[in-house]
Amino acid sequence: MMKISGRNKLQATVKEVIKGAVMAKVVMDYKGEVPVAAITTDSVDDLNLKPGDQVTALVKATEMMVIKE
Amino acid sequence: MMKISGRNKLQATVKEVIKGAVMAKVVMDYKGEVPVAAITTDSVDDLNLKPGDQVTALVKATEMMVIKE
Amino acid sequence: MMKISGRNKLQATVKEVIKGAVMAKVVMDYKGEVPVAAITTDSVDDLNLKPGDQVTALVKATEMMVIKE
Amino acid sequence: MMKISGRNKLQATVKEVIKGAVMAKVVMDYKGEVPVAAITTDSVDDLNLKPGDQVTALVKATEMMVIKE
Amino acid sequence: MMKISGRNKLQATVKEVIKGAVMAKVVMDYKGEVPVAAITTDSVDDLNLKPGDQVTALVKATEMMVIKE
Amino acid sequence: MMKISGRNKLQATVKEVIKGAVMAKVVMDYKGEVPVAAITTDSVDDLNLKPGDQVTALVKATEMMVIKE
Repeated sequence: MMKISGRNKLQATVKEVIKGAVMAKVVMDYKGEVPVAAITTDSVDDLNLKPGDQVTALVKATEMMVIKE
Repeated sequence: MMKISGRNKLQATVKEVIKGAVMAKVVMDYKGEVPVAAITTDSVDDLNLKPGDQVTALVKATEMMVIKE
Repeated sequence: MMKISGRNKLQATVKEVIKGAVMAKVVMDYKGEVPVAAITTDSVDDLNLKPGDQVTALVKATEMMVIKE
Repeated sequence: MMKISGRNKLQATVKEVIKGAVMAKVVMDYKGEVPVAAITTDSVDDLNLKPGDQVTALVKATEMMVIKE
Repeated sequence: MMKISGRNKLQATVKEVIKGAVMAKVVMDYKGEVPVAAITTDSVDDLNLKPGDQVTALVKATEMMVIKE
Repeated sequence: MMKISGRNKLQATVKEVIKGAVMAKVVMDYKGEVPVAAITTDSVDDLNLKPGDQVTALVKATEMMVIKE
């Protein structure tokens, strides 16, 4: 079974895909939250991402900040 | 009101904080998921992060990947 | 008071905003330097970023490299 | 088949693993180059990474810079 | 001599450059692999990147993940 | 002359270096601000970083967020 070192994985559903010349925006739905990933348009095409797809949003622990009020 | 460009913000609760010499691990609870942030130990001290704290995990859209099976 | 774990915060002034389909470029002025942030166009719209705005450029310590000659 | 949006994937062999309290260093061998990944010690344990393992080093296109002389 | 803290440096050749309004895609060739960097269009212009250029792809160790099957 | 695609470069002076097992903290001085970089301890050793060194803090545009109040 494939395992990835990235610690943060959210099982989400693709809601919207907007493709630009180089970068694309993938808006997802995760338990009422809307994670947004900016990935290359090539990746969107390679994964054939489209609304309704079941995906996993992946974030490396070193890329996450913490805010406290 | 302060607004941050980072698109992904998860309201979470701190579960565990492990401090190393330079980096620290902050394990959170978010709707049953366990986001993990690797931030500097200085930041943990500056924010006085401890279990039970209500925080926001922040991730820039360009740092998020998408996995599709 | 809200505190963010990101260690690097530069008080800057927005000089120029260029919006693409997905990503936008925000050029700032900071003590004679010109920090450039590539953020989503959604973020630019959400923060209503425009020339003259007083902002803070935020960078996580793990994202900063060091060059020595 | 699982597909990841990250564009850069190098098939490498683990040469050395050094674990700190929070972060670990994974030194690999890839066609004579030595990619180095700094990931959480938790990830090293979770993947049970050790010298000799066949792995893939993964890098998002937005995290890669270009140098020209 | 200039030294950069970033641990991962691949000597590559530029194969293709696609410029969008803000971001550009730089596809390279490295021993048969095709590293892809998403950098600002400003950077492409500043470095005058074009097919055939000898470049170095640079990645910080904290930005590299590891996959194990 | 070597050129790097990373858009943000601050000419700074190293004030303090703290080395952990894997990661190190480099605190700098830049016009009264204190940029902090978390890089590998290997990099600190490779560049022989020490207080008083003239260095350049380097940040990719895609790693910079913007905060507006």
